[in-house]
Amino acid sequence: MPAIRHIPIDTYPESTVFLPRRDNGYSPEQFKAMRKVQVTGRCGEILATLAIVDGDGLVRPGEVGLGNEAFRRLGMTEGEEVVITQAPVPASLEDVRRKIDGESLSDSEISAIIRDIATHRYSPMEIGAFLVACAGFMSTPETLAMTRAMVDVGSRLSWDSPLVVDKHCIGGVPGNRTSMIVVPIVAAHGLIIPKTSSRAITSPSGTADTMEVLANVDLDAARVAQIVARDHAVLAWGGKMNLSPADDVLISVERPLRIDTFEQMVASILSKKAAAGSTHLVLDIPIGPTAKVRSEGEAVRLRKLFEYVARHMGIVTEVVFTDGSEPVGRGIGPVLEARDVMAVLRNEADAPDDLRDRAVMLAGKVIDFDPEVEGGRGYARAMELLSSGAALAAMERLIAAQGAQTTIYRPGIHQFEATAPVAGRVASIDCHRIARIARLAGAPMDKGAGIDLLHKTGAHVRRGEALYRIHAGSKDGLAFAREMALADSGYLVQP
Amino acid sequence: MPAIRHIPIDTYPESTVFLPRRDNGYSPEQFKAMRKVQVTGRCGEILATLAIVDGDGLVRPGEVGLGNEAFRRLGMTEGEEVVITQAPVPASLEDVRRKIDGESLSDSEISAIIRDIATHRYSPMEIGAFLVACAGFMSTPETLAMTRAMVDVGSRLSWDSPLVVDKHCIGGVPGNRTSMIVVPIVAAHGLIIPKTSSRAITSPSGTADTMEVLANVDLDAARVAQIVARDHAVLAWGGKMNLSPADDVLISVERPLRIDTFEQMVASILSKKAAAGSTHLVLDIPIGPTAKVRSEGEAVRLRKLFEYVARHMGIVTEVVFTDGSEPVGRGIGPVLEARDVMAVLRNEADAPDDLRDRAVMLAGKVIDFDPEVEGGRGYARAMELLSSGAALAAMERLIAAQGAQTTIYRPGIHQFEATAPVAGRVASIDCHRIARIARLAGAPMDKGAGIDLLHKTGAHVRRGEALYRIHAGSKDGLAFAREMALADSGYLVQP
Repeated sequence: MPAIRHIPIDTYPESTVFLPRRDNGYSPEQFKAMRKVQVTGRCGEILATLAIVDGDGLVRPGEVGLGNEAFRRLGMTEGEEVVITQAPVPASLEDVRRKIDGESLSDSEISAIIRDIATHRYSPMEIGAFLVACAGFMSTPETLAMTRAMVDVGSRLSWDSPLVVDKHCIGGVPGNRTSMIVVPIVAAHGLIIPKTSSRAITSPSGTADTMEVLANVDLDAARVAQIVARDHAVLAWGGKMNLSPADDVLISVERPLRIDTFEQMVASILSKKAAAGSTHLVLDIPIGPTAKVRSEGEAVRLRKLFEYVARHMGIVTEVVFTDGSEPVGRGIGPVLEARDVMAVLRNEADAPDDLRDRAVMLAGKVIDFDPEVEGGRGYARAMELLSSGAALAAMERLIAAQGAQTTIYRPGIHQFEATAPVAGRVASIDCHRIARIARLAGAPMDKGAGIDLLHKTGAHVRRGEALYRIHAGSKDGLAFAREMALADSGYLVQP
Repeated sequence: MPAIRHIPIDTYPESTVFLPRRDNGYSPEQFKAMRKVQVTGRCGEILATLAIVDGDGLVRPGEVGLGNEAFRRLGMTEGEEVVITQAPVPASLEDVRRKIDGESLSDSEISAIIRDIATHRYSPMEIGAFLVACAGFMSTPETLAMTRAMVDVGSRLSWDSPLVVDKHCIGGVPGNRTSMIVVPIVAAHGLIIPKTSSRAITSPSGTADTMEVLANVDLDAARVAQIVARDHAVLAWGGKMNLSPADDVLISVERPLRIDTFEQMVASILSKKAAAGSTHLVLDIPIGPTAKVRSEGEAVRLRKLFEYVARHMGIVTEVVFTDGSEPVGRGIGPVLEARDVMAVLRNEADAPDDLRDRAVMLAGKVIDFDPEVEGGRGYARAMELLSSGAALAAMERLIAAQGAQTTIYRPGIHQFEATAPVAGRVASIDCHRIARIARLAGAPMDKGAGIDLLHKTGAHVRRGEALYRIHAGSKDGLAFAREMALADSGYLVQP
C-alpha cells in the first residue's frame, strides 16, 4: 500500500491527489478513465481529483501525494498507508439524469442526491447539471423534500425554549441591513433570536460582512450557544456551524452559474432556519423593478412556496412584502452600512428614516410572535425599545460577547462623486447597478469600499450636484467603479 | 513580469497554473475569488485553473508554474515572461443563463456560446449547465444554429468533386460495424467517401476502434487528403482533424452526464459531416426496445430533425430506419467485430448474414446518390462489388494506404460462457446490457475484449447451452463481466 505525503498545493475547493506516472500500479489507459479517485485510510475515505506527476520531484513510486485540501480532509499523518481506488459513481446520478429528462423525483431520491452532494461525491459539473435541471422544473413537494434533506445532512442547533424567532430578508436591495437593528430590539424584548447569516454572495455586503466591522462573527456552535444563553441573541456568520452543509456546496455552484430560482431560495433559507432551530420566522420579500422579485404576482408565488414548505417543516412564518424600488439607508458596503445601523440604534437625528422604519416594523412583527404581547402591540414595543436605548444596550452587549472588532475600519480614502447630468428630480435608483458599482469598488472584501447615497428617490438636485460618493481602499477599485458609474450611474434624474 | 516554469504535472483535461502563495502580487482574498486565470504571453493566451503552492519547492516568487496541459497549450519555453490576470467571464454566459430561464436564443447568441466553448473559455460546470438547459428545451432553429456554429469554429475538408458521400449510424446497437463494409464497396464503385469516425464514447467499440485492429487510423488532414485522392476513401479517426472541435468539448461533458438528446445528436453528427465536406449522407437509425431510439414515433421525430438541419446545411440526406432489436453480427468489441467485417468482405460461408445484408443495403443507398447509376440499381451494384471481391480489394488498398496494423490483436484469452438457464427459444437480446458487459470485459481499450454471440434471436437452445462467450485480456476484466452476465445475461430464453 502506498504511503501518503503532504503536497503543499492548494486547489480549493477541489481535493487533489498526486500520483507518480511510473509504477503506480495502473496502466495509462486506466488512469485516463479514472480522473476521480477514492483514498481510503485509517480515518475514513475521501474523493479527490487525480493529477499525474512526471519525475520524482514531488512524489515517488510507492507514495501518494495529497494536496492541502485532501490532506486536511483525510486527517491522517504523512507516511501512513492508504488504498487508492477508482471513485465509485454515485448511484443517485441516475436520478439526476431522470430529472434532466423531465421526470419528478421522490423524497428518497432527492434525499440520496443531497446526501451525496453534501459528502462531496458530486463534481461541480454534476451539481450544475442537477441545479439546471431543477431550474427547468421543480414541484412544490420536490422543494420540500430538498429542504428536509438539506437539514438532515447537517448539524442542528437546539434551544431550551418553545419560541425561537428569526427574521430573514431574501436580499437584492443594497443597504437593507435591518437584521442588525431587529436582532438587538428583539433581544432587548427578551425573545431568543440566534441570527446566523451569510457573507455576501453576489451583493456588496451580507449581514455577516457588516457585523464584522463591529465584532467578531466567526463563532462556532458552542460559543453561539453560550452567548444566546446569556444575551438571547447572536449575530454570527453561519459558515462554521455546519448548518445545511449541502446548501454551502450548492451555493458554490449556483454563484458562478448565477442560478437564483425561487425553489433553491426557499430550500436554502428554510433549511438553514430549521437547522438553526427556529420556530417562528418573519420573512421580508422586497418588491421592485430592479430587486430580486419584480412584481406582486411573483412575490405571491414565492410567498406561497415559502408558506407551504415552512408549514411542513413546522416553522411558523409571516411573510412581509416591502418596498424594493431603491436601496435602503444611505451606506452600501460593510463600513458605511455599519455606520447607518449604529446611527439608528443611537437614535441620531440624521439616521436614515427608511432603514429605521423598516427595521422597527419587522421587529414589531417578530415581537408579535410572543404570546405575552397583546395583539398588534409589537410595533409600539419595538419602537419603545429602540427609542429608550434598550436596543443599543443590547447591541453593545452582543458586540462585547462576540468580541469587539480590533481593527478600526474606515470608509475607503479613494473617492469619486457621481453627479446629476441635469437639474431635476431623482425618479429612480437601480438597485442592481448600484450593487455592481459598490462591488467593483471592492465591497465586501474591502470593508471600507462602497457607496454613500447622498440623495434618494424624490429628491430635487441641481445639475452637477453629487448624487452619491464611491469609496474604495485601492486606486484600481475606484477606477473600475468610477468607469462603471460614468457609463451609467444607476440614477435616473428627470428634469 | 513573472517567468514561466514547466511543472511536470498532468491535470488533463484541465489546464493548471501553479503560483507561489507568497509575493505573487495578489492578496489572499483576490486569490480566493480568482480560481480561473488568464496567462498571456508572446504566443497568445490560455485560460487555466489556479493552484497555490506553499514553500519554494515547486515555484518561487517571480515564477509561474504551468502544468503539462497548460505548458503545451501556451507553446512557450521556460523562462519567458507572461502576464497573469483574472480570467474574463465570457459574455456569452449571460445567454446561457437566459437559456436556463427557458428563453430561446438567437443564431448569434448560440454562435458566441459555441465559439467560447471551442476556445476553452467555459468550465465543465458551465458547459454542463448549457447542455442541461438545452436538454430541457431546444427549438429546431436553435439546433440548426448550433450545428452551423460548430462547423464555423473548426477546420473544413474540401474535395474536388461535386459528390462527396458518407454513411453514418446513430449507434446504440452493438456489433453494427457496417461502415467498414459500406466504405470499401462505395470506394470500389468509385464515389468519394472520406469516412472519419469517432472512437467509442459509451459503447464497446467505435468504427475507429475496430478499424484500428486492421490499420492505422490516426491520420492528419493532409494524409487523409492524399489517401482519398488515390483510393476515393478513407476509414480514419476524426480526432486529429479539428473537425467540429466544439463537439469534442461538448462530448467530454455529455459523456459523464450521459446527456444524449436528439438535438445534440443531430448537431454533433451533422457538424462533423459538414466539416468533412460531405454533400450526400445515408443515415442509419436503428429502432428497438433497447436501442437509442425505441419507437417508430421517436424515430420519425429524429428523422425530421435531421432532415431539417441537413437541408439547411446543404447536405442531401437519406434516412433509413433499421432493425435495432438485437446486436448485429456476432462479434462485439474491436477484434471480434473486425473478424466479422473481414469475413463478410471475404465472402466467407459463415460470415454473419445480418451484418452483410444491412451493409449491402446501406451501400446500395449510397451508390444510388450517383447520377450515373440507373434508378434503384444501387443495391445490385453493391452486391456485385462485394461478391466479386472488388470491395475486399478496396479494403486491402485502404489498409495498405493507411498503414497496416503492426500489432496482431487476438480475442482475449480469458473466457467465460453465459449459458441458457432453460431450454427454449431466444426471445430477445438486450443491446444495452450486452454493451455494458462487453465494456466491463475491457472493450474498447482492450482490443481483444468483448463478446462473441453464439446464438441470435429466434434460435432454439438446450438448457445449459452457451449463449455467448466473453473474452477479456485481464482476469479482472473477465471477473467484472462474468459477474454482470451472471446477474443478468441480457438474453431472454423462453421455454
